[in-house]
Amino acid sequence: MAAEKKQAAKASRVRLFVDAPIAADLELKLESAQSHYIGTVMRLAPGDTLSIFNGRDGEWRAAIAGLKRGACTLKPEAQARPQQASSGPWLLFAPVKSSRTELLIEKATELGVSALWPVTTQYSQSKLAKPERYRAHAVEAAEQCGRLDVPKIQPLAALTAVLEEWPTDRRLLFCDEAGGPPVLEALEALVAGPPGPWAILIGPEGGFSAEERADIRTRRFSVPVSLGPRTLRAETAAVAALSLWQAVLGDLRLGN
Amino acid sequence: MAAEKKQAAKASRVRLFVDAPIAADLELKLESAQSHYIGTVMRLAPGDTLSIFNGRDGEWRAAIAGLKRGACTLKPEAQARPQQASSGPWLLFAPVKSSRTELLIEKATELGVSALWPVTTQYSQSKLAKPERYRAHAVEAAEQCGRLDVPKIQPLAALTAVLEEWPTDRRLLFCDEAGGPPVLEALEALVAGPPGPWAILIGPEGGFSAEERADIRTRRFSVPVSLGPRTLRAETAAVAALSLWQAVLGDLRLGN
Repeated sequence: MAAEKKQAAKASRVRLFVDAPIAADLELKLESAQSHYIGTVMRLAPGDTLSIFNGRDGEWRAAIAGLKRGACTLKPEAQARPQQASSGPWLLFAPVKSSRTELLIEKATELGVSALWPVTTQYSQSKLAKPERYRAHAVEAAEQCGRLDVPKIQPLAALTAVLEEWPTDRRLLFCDEAGGPPVLEALEALVAGPPGPWAILIGPEGGFSAEERADIRTRRFSVPVSLGPRTLRAETAAVAALSLWQAVLGDLRLGN
Repeated sequence: MAAEKKQAAKASRVRLFVDAPIAADLELKLESAQSHYIGTVMRLAPGDTLSIFNGRDGEWRAAIAGLKRGACTLKPEAQARPQQASSGPWLLFAPVKSSRTELLIEKATELGVSALWPVTTQYSQSKLAKPERYRAHAVEAAEQCGRLDVPKIQPLAALTAVLEEWPTDRRLLFCDEAGGPPVLEALEALVAGPPGPWAILIGPEGGFSAEERADIRTRRFSVPVSLGPRTLRAETAAVAALSLWQAVLGDLRLGN
């Protein structure tokens, strides 16, 4: 099998994020973990091709130019898809225990968020935030789902501070466990209005305090909604809210 | 703390599914895992109350009547919520690796599916199905999210056989990775039509074969849709499709 692969170069389904400029014939040296993945895990060989993207230069087909002792070099051959601006909303969330937060990061990336913003609330534990690990999960999900960029990870901040500095042209879909109008109705009422950027705020386990809820609801940019009669876990709520936002205002409107 | 709890009986936030009839003053003996949970994990004491439901008799407040050597008996005191018929769709899915399938079960339960139906497809591995474990995850999610029943778990079956025996009045939202009309548009076009039961079909990792797709699409009950431009993992697709279905046709329409 390995011998056969060395003889017949092939187009693999491997797709990697690289943190370097991509242009025709600009050779790229991969980091060791990616080189290991290509050579040892996926058993690709020089001449085989894969897809790469960096969030700026679109998606490229690249050929393996060299693969020795865990060091892989790639030669970009042709741009397969041009870069597109990321139009998804930000997602503000209170970190829950780490396996669940990693799921939230993965799923929000699949559903096209442009930025992930961990926030502390009165009932959430700030020490659970691991922004350094969030990036790795976002990169892996971006590679897997086919998007052309990796969502930005904001540093952990107190929700109250974030709201104070909020860019007022950005609407905030506030998923309020304590109740609100149906989310689809609220979003559809805003389709006809002026377009503009959005964010989604998902509550912590244990919910927001009454004081926090009142504060968020009275902000001019806030759009409070209900995600239905059942209590959703944070990552389920994130996927539900993002799906609905994308279906009404984003790229799920278009089909494919 | 333990002493204090024994003195002052309290209303706990514990919520348990019991597989027995519930009626006023009909004493219930819990199984040992639940008894352990109540006594050792949650440290409740005789006189404390909790919520119980069985999928038939609504939700009840019950008091701990006895708790000795890991055997707990409960005395139902009053019905807190009457039983409601489960109106959510069925979810047909091809089992993926078990941690991901368990997530899918959990999230589909949170989003109100009435039944979970594992199916084999041409590109899926039937040996991954563990219906005996699915039930435990569905029960736990039902307890956590506040629903009044546990989704039914169907035995694993070949997708082709399921489609042959399909109840033709039940529409099938076919989430087709190969493309289709936008899901929200497709669902909204059917809101005005005759109401009726629904199911959602999520593809396996690796997708459906061309032959399967053609078969599913030509069934009269099939409503093919796209979940957007990115490749979603099976459990993400399930949450997205269920959220959209509930928002257009189910109980997310209502807010709370």
